[in-house]
Amino acid sequence: MQRNIYIENMPLEQARQIYIDRLKECGYFKMESEVIDVLESQGRITRSAVFARRSSPHYAAAAMDGIAVKASSTFDASEITPVTLPPGTFIEVDTGDYVPREFDAVIMIEDVNFIDSAARIIKAAVPWQHIRSVGEDLVAHDMVIPSSYQIGPYEVASLCTAAVPSVEVVKKPLVAIIPTGTELIDEGSDDMSPGEIVESNSRMLSGLSQEWGAVTYRHKIVPDDKNLLRQAVEEVKDKADMIIICSGSSAGREDYTSSIIEEFGEVLVHGIATRPGKPAILGVINNKPVIGVPGYPISAGLIFNLFARPVLYMKQGITPPQADILECNVSRKIASSMGVDEYIYTNIAKIDNHYIAYPLNRGAGITTSLVKADGAFCIKRGNEGLEAGEPCKVELNRPRNVIDNTIVMIGSHDMTVDFLVDILQRQYGIRLVSTNVGSMGGIMALRRAETHFSGIHLLDYETGDYNTSYLEKYLPGKNYILINLVIRKQGLIVKKGNPLEIESLQNVTREDVRFINRQKGAGTRILFDYLLSRDEISSVSINGYNREEYTHLAVAAAVKNDACDCGLGIYASARALDLDFIPIAEERYDLCILPDMLDKNRMEILLNTIKSSEFKNRVNAFGGYDLKLSGQVVYKNF
Amino acid sequence: MQRNIYIENMPLEQARQIYIDRLKECGYFKMESEVIDVLESQGRITRSAVFARRSSPHYAAAAMDGIAVKASSTFDASEITPVTLPPGTFIEVDTGDYVPREFDAVIMIEDVNFIDSAARIIKAAVPWQHIRSVGEDLVAHDMVIPSSYQIGPYEVASLCTAAVPSVEVVKKPLVAIIPTGTELIDEGSDDMSPGEIVESNSRMLSGLSQEWGAVTYRHKIVPDDKNLLRQAVEEVKDKADMIIICSGSSAGREDYTSSIIEEFGEVLVHGIATRPGKPAILGVINNKPVIGVPGYPISAGLIFNLFARPVLYMKQGITPPQADILECNVSRKIASSMGVDEYIYTNIAKIDNHYIAYPLNRGAGITTSLVKADGAFCIKRGNEGLEAGEPCKVELNRPRNVIDNTIVMIGSHDMTVDFLVDILQRQYGIRLVSTNVGSMGGIMALRRAETHFSGIHLLDYETGDYNTSYLEKYLPGKNYILINLVIRKQGLIVKKGNPLEIESLQNVTREDVRFINRQKGAGTRILFDYLLSRDEISSVSINGYNREEYTHLAVAAAVKNDACDCGLGIYASARALDLDFIPIAEERYDLCILPDMLDKNRMEILLNTIKSSEFKNRVNAFGGYDLKLSGQVVYKNF
Repeated sequence: MQRNIYIENMPLEQARQIYIDRLKECGYFKMESEVIDVLESQGRITRSAVFARRSSPHYAAAAMDGIAVKASSTFDASEITPVTLPPGTFIEVDTGDYVPREFDAVIMIEDVNFIDSAARIIKAAVPWQHIRSVGEDLVAHDMVIPSSYQIGPYEVASLCTAAVPSVEVVKKPLVAIIPTGTELIDEGSDDMSPGEIVESNSRMLSGLSQEWGAVTYRHKIVPDDKNLLRQAVEEVKDKADMIIICSGSSAGREDYTSSIIEEFGEVLVHGIATRPGKPAILGVINNKPVIGVPGYPISAGLIFNLFARPVLYMKQGITPPQADILECNVSRKIASSMGVDEYIYTNIAKIDNHYIAYPLNRGAGITTSLVKADGAFCIKRGNEGLEAGEPCKVELNRPRNVIDNTIVMIGSHDMTVDFLVDILQRQYGIRLVSTNVGSMGGIMALRRAETHFSGIHLLDYETGDYNTSYLEKYLPGKNYILINLVIRKQGLIVKKGNPLEIESLQNVTREDVRFINRQKGAGTRILFDYLLSRDEISSVSINGYNREEYTHLAVAAAVKNDACDCGLGIYASARALDLDFIPIAEERYDLCILPDMLDKNRMEILLNTIKSSEFKNRVNAFGGYDLKLSGQVVYKNF
Repeated sequence: MQRNIYIENMPLEQARQIYIDRLKECGYFKMESEVIDVLESQGRITRSAVFARRSSPHYAAAAMDGIAVKASSTFDASEITPVTLPPGTFIEVDTGDYVPREFDAVIMIEDVNFIDSAARIIKAAVPWQHIRSVGEDLVAHDMVIPSSYQIGPYEVASLCTAAVPSVEVVKKPLVAIIPTGTELIDEGSDDMSPGEIVESNSRMLSGLSQEWGAVTYRHKIVPDDKNLLRQAVEEVKDKADMIIICSGSSAGREDYTSSIIEEFGEVLVHGIATRPGKPAILGVINNKPVIGVPGYPISAGLIFNLFARPVLYMKQGITPPQADILECNVSRKIASSMGVDEYIYTNIAKIDNHYIAYPLNRGAGITTSLVKADGAFCIKRGNEGLEAGEPCKVELNRPRNVIDNTIVMIGSHDMTVDFLVDILQRQYGIRLVSTNVGSMGGIMALRRAETHFSGIHLLDYETGDYNTSYLEKYLPGKNYILINLVIRKQGLIVKKGNPLEIESLQNVTREDVRFINRQKGAGTRILFDYLLSRDEISSVSINGYNREEYTHLAVAAAVKNDACDCGLGIYASARALDLDFIPIAEERYDLCILPDMLDKNRMEILLNTIKSSEFKNRVNAFGGYDLKLSGQVVYKNF
């Protein structure tokens, strides 16, 4: 067993410098161009300046509907002494018509009184009035647009007017993407074995390349076989302007990639001090860049943004569009290793006139973080991280008005929240971002005024009531309003047909039953502990009490996939994954809203959405919920 | 002769309200959808929320390269008491591999010492360490993206991972564009008669529609014939989601358009109180919008932005992206009529840390204003305009960093400035915006600190020197530096072969010679007056002394097109249009730079560009210039 475990850990700027410098030496950034029809040129970048081939107007043109006259023939006209121009001394013109040489002014039709075929006027015309002179808009040989300029709709129209039939534009660079890995399969397969992974990185990198002006070629998936990888590189290396090898995350596979790059060219950098993204490879083949991107999607996306993006733009002779930077305060402590530039993907919302960044799960395998992220910030090498509340500069990947139009909800997870998200987006253009940290996490976020509202379902051990006693304890003196979203059933989620015959909480302690728990602070966890205590069951007796999942569906999925035999959760999750369900309790899932943080208009929209028939219909279709209190104020404190 | 001269003049908001309300009544905004392959979905808008069909990972997966073990078998391991796991009690796994049910932890390969086929470890494994549980990323039935959401590269990858094969997206609306006008011809013709106009509006409106998510169909040009227009509307009215009739600017033609709309449906508004854009028509055919846009390109563009854009976005169920708004100060007084909402297109540059808006020529026929504009601001109905220096809010159509990266040059026109613009853009990514207001206008802009530098060529009547005495007089106490750009030849531009045998200034006074002048304040105008005074020629004796053009090339184009017989200008203009040239003088064309306004770095780039061999080669290839002083400091005051 031979593995190349230890790779370099080169600082980001150094890696970038080496890579760009080497590409410059290779003459890589010399631009290639092609000549295309103007009508096909929208969105393209000019390689050379474009000059007008014809003036516009190319003749003296009427600027108004009216009559063309010789100005001197009108000089005596006034209201008292109207002048009547006999036929033949003027001609009628519409806007844009040619004004023949013998005329030097146009009189607006509104100012002309036609009497038979003569024209009577009561005001003298100033020479050259209402005539557009030749070249007023464009003069032949004037520059219409410079080089390195992106052509848009206005430019296309202007070039047509300037009689330019074709333009020399920068050729779109061709990015060849080679996915490698024996475990990879193409999307679209309905049956997958454990260990098989859908190859999606090439789709993401293709899409990004296209957004950056490139065209892409995706090679078919190459299994882990050095010869096959060699063939794939051989196949693309002449036609591609950039080669991307999606090289997987295992050190063994990087070996293939780096040694194949060495065969055809040179490896410049292997291993970069960033997180995620460390195992990246930068090289050159045929004087063109080749990048080995790691297998984890987040790492692949980051490395591609850091290294492919600037190079593709430079190759096209333009600077990348600058991202909008937003100064935020981070919602929680973020530790970072001193040795790396760490990129933190984050959601953002505007609360009480300042922006809060809510860092997303940092796992490199969490592709949903890329979808959810509003942007990312970097904790530079040499820093240990940020304390909660510290400022961070987030590079946005959404327009700022989307962020300004975001309501954030931090707390417990419920599937019906997805319906709210969907309806708010479609009906009101409001984005609801839901971050699941459990009910107690939600209350803490309310306490720190870091969320517009929270979803909570916290059982009071003593009264049997939900939520209110917690709010009284943890939010003393705050204004808040508690609105019921749904009442939901909690119970034991078990395999279809309940093969282990789990009928009660007591059964969970059996040695053959593997349980899965929810994370500490989650309302469901508190309910479970309450039930254990009520029934005098020791948590130690439960196999899996310490294994935690963060959502109801994750618990159900764990049961479904035999990672465990049962867990406590809601009916909806069991039903969604076609599992059985042993009901144990009903609980109130409420939204606690800070009216100081959410303006009246959005508060009203939120309430209307909860009370809407679309929301109710979708919840009922899902099942396992009672809507008798939905949208009602169950408690308030102000 | 029947004309419908008087149309309505409806306030913009009222027109928009009537139009949108009527479309709502028609049920127009009910969205149509289509189901497409996920791999084709980038850039599209979801019609319905998309839910995961498979969890990811869909099995317990190794998060590291290493060995999968039963955690309990490692609990005794420490540096002092290493544990050796015999073959069969562990398996080797790479990142992403399936971890079979009998194992519950992964130990990183770096922490394993292989001895024959046994594995020796010195640290206990925590249960479930380095194992990605089922659904860690995505849980089946979770919402991946809501409805009314634009799909990007990350979403495509995530949907592939979620086993979603296809998505329901909003159908792209089809915009049918009908250009009308007997004077219109398609682009690409080399010979054009006076009165013929290249039809370019449909190209602009198509391009804009596509940027806004629509697809387009362009009907062939329809001559001014009611039957043919009727046929064209008949042809598109069933398939199109929006009909655009480029109806020309003449009142007669609007009549056709509005009466044809009445035949098939209804005219809601005819005539809107905006400038430009007044003669627009809003109507409904087949419960779908139809817009008659005016013929002038600027009017067409504005009306299309005001009325088509919001409707096309609404039809797709999303709100239009919000333009970036920049607060600027307007560089000069702008008068506006009380009765209209007037849109002013403008350039912008950042000078001394505030943004100045330089309004472009307001002629509705000036298509180049659309190309040049960095944005537009609106002077609302009821206002008489803005005084110089007053604030205005400009809606940007370029990214802010392009504006921050702009150098502005206000003053006289010289063709070699185009080469500077082109080289600065391509080599340095710096945008040079050149506004031609003549040399005196340039000095006044320097005086008000409203430009980074000015191009000037002002002759001192007494010393015969250029520029310096003017600067001393008009910029007392200011720091400035005067750098020569070129020395250029001035002379009389006459027709090819000089048919009128114009050989001297004296000849210009002949009755058969039609002269064209430059505008007041232009250096060339001052030179002309100086020469007249020197030779004791009266301006009254010159036919055309009061007719003005604003650039050298416009003067040459006027000669070329027989709008006049001669004008004073530079050799380059005569040569460019293949005209003859009678040299009269050489003049120094200098750049006067305010070092307080232009940072050192950009000053250096500008100087390097002037001294570059590319600039010199292009100027020499053009001809008529002497470069012996180019880039030299000819005067400075600090």
